[in-house]
Amino acid sequence: MHIDVLTLFPEMIEGVLNASILKRAQDNAAFNYNLVNFRDYSANKHSKVDDYPYGGGAGMVLTPQPVFDTLDALTSGGQTKPRVVLLSPQGEPYQQSKAEELAEEDHLVLICGHYEGYDERIREHLVTDEISIGDYVLTGGELGAMVLIDSVVRLLPDALGNKESAAEDSFSSGLLEHPHYTRPADFRGMKVPEVLLSGDHAKIAEWRREASLKRTYERRPDMLVKENLTEKDGELLRKIQQNED
Amino acid sequence: MHIDVLTLFPEMIEGVLNASILKRAQDNAAFNYNLVNFRDYSANKHSKVDDYPYGGGAGMVLTPQPVFDTLDALTSGGQTKPRVVLLSPQGEPYQQSKAEELAEEDHLVLICGHYEGYDERIREHLVTDEISIGDYVLTGGELGAMVLIDSVVRLLPDALGNKESAAEDSFSSGLLEHPHYTRPADFRGMKVPEVLLSGDHAKIAEWRREASLKRTYERRPDMLVKENLTEKDGELLRKIQQNED
Repeated sequence: MHIDVLTLFPEMIEGVLNASILKRAQDNAAFNYNLVNFRDYSANKHSKVDDYPYGGGAGMVLTPQPVFDTLDALTSGGQTKPRVVLLSPQGEPYQQSKAEELAEEDHLVLICGHYEGYDERIREHLVTDEISIGDYVLTGGELGAMVLIDSVVRLLPDALGNKESAAEDSFSSGLLEHPHYTRPADFRGMKVPEVLLSGDHAKIAEWRREASLKRTYERRPDMLVKENLTEKDGELLRKIQQNED
Repeated sequence: MHIDVLTLFPEMIEGVLNASILKRAQDNAAFNYNLVNFRDYSANKHSKVDDYPYGGGAGMVLTPQPVFDTLDALTSGGQTKPRVVLLSPQGEPYQQSKAEELAEEDHLVLICGHYEGYDERIREHLVTDEISIGDYVLTGGELGAMVLIDSVVRLLPDALGNKESAAEDSFSSGLLEHPHYTRPADFRGMKVPEVLLSGDHAKIAEWRREASLKRTYERRPDMLVKENLTEKDGELLRKIQQNED
């Protein structure tokens, strides 16, 4: 997969793309990237990329010209058709299913805004997807782009060392994960639950499923939908509800 | 505000904290930060910070010792009581209201996990808040920490140059923002809506409110709650609904 990132702050992104799993994914040739400062494409003699909003108001708006011209360059004047994602608080709320969808693509272009917003013509005529990583206000689209890259690239074949890990993560099962414990069994008097030391795999599996259901019930009841639950889960949930009453 | 970040990958974070508004906020003394690699606090002779999960399963789990000892050092053995935030997919879904709450604090400690998860005792005995930035799987907590820092710091007094900007952002009004346009009025044949060039401020305000309502209606109807709507908004919404039928 190739990812182009249009940003005025390439130095924000570099560190994230060259650490940990994203580094390994590049070493494994699972993906490569190109950070494009679209200020370099500005036709303005001072390399300006923003201007006052028509109709008045606070803040500056990104002008269409530098972004359109950058896209022309990246797509050979429109000959290639990458997915063009705008990171924006107005976008579709980002979810794991979208990461899975984008992981099927060969070429992504991510546009990171700054300032008050983008000229609407960018949104209407260049962009195929608008994504918001959450209902909070960020300085710019760069963090959204990094979140998107991290979540997509780790799904690519060869990106992760241990394939099992990706499948067992939170959200893959539709429930929150059960608690994890590791050595020592007693740390400053805080003990690991007995069952996990028992070696009884069936009991451990049941304890984990119940803990996973309990955590989801307490924190994210919105995730307890029928498709993710077995009949046995239903019994466990009734037990959890009774204990809380 | 002082922010400590516990991470095994400090080099991921540095670039984000030293660019754009986060840089300016430090120059304005609105906040400062300290990146702590908790591997430095490992009592293991190979500086190990993870181990196999009790009860079996894929992936590695962060051991309690390095994290507890780091917290002891940062809080002078528990004498100070910062907000200790764990970034985790199991956490409370992050929202702008939480950013506003955290912006009132003097001292935040953010813990970024990696690998399969945290030993549960960290969660139970050290942490005051568990936050998830969204329903997608990331390599580690670092991107969550950066999102949290960016969203909180920009709310601090003196962090932003233009105070009006923060107030007018998406979510502050409870609706998605209206479209923005800037020069040129005609770009490659794509034109700015006439009303924005009219100079009629009342008409412009009404056009923007209607566009904001329309976008919210189409993309995020979950945000259309009574508290954010005036009687006039109700009329505009009925008009929007009729046009879509």
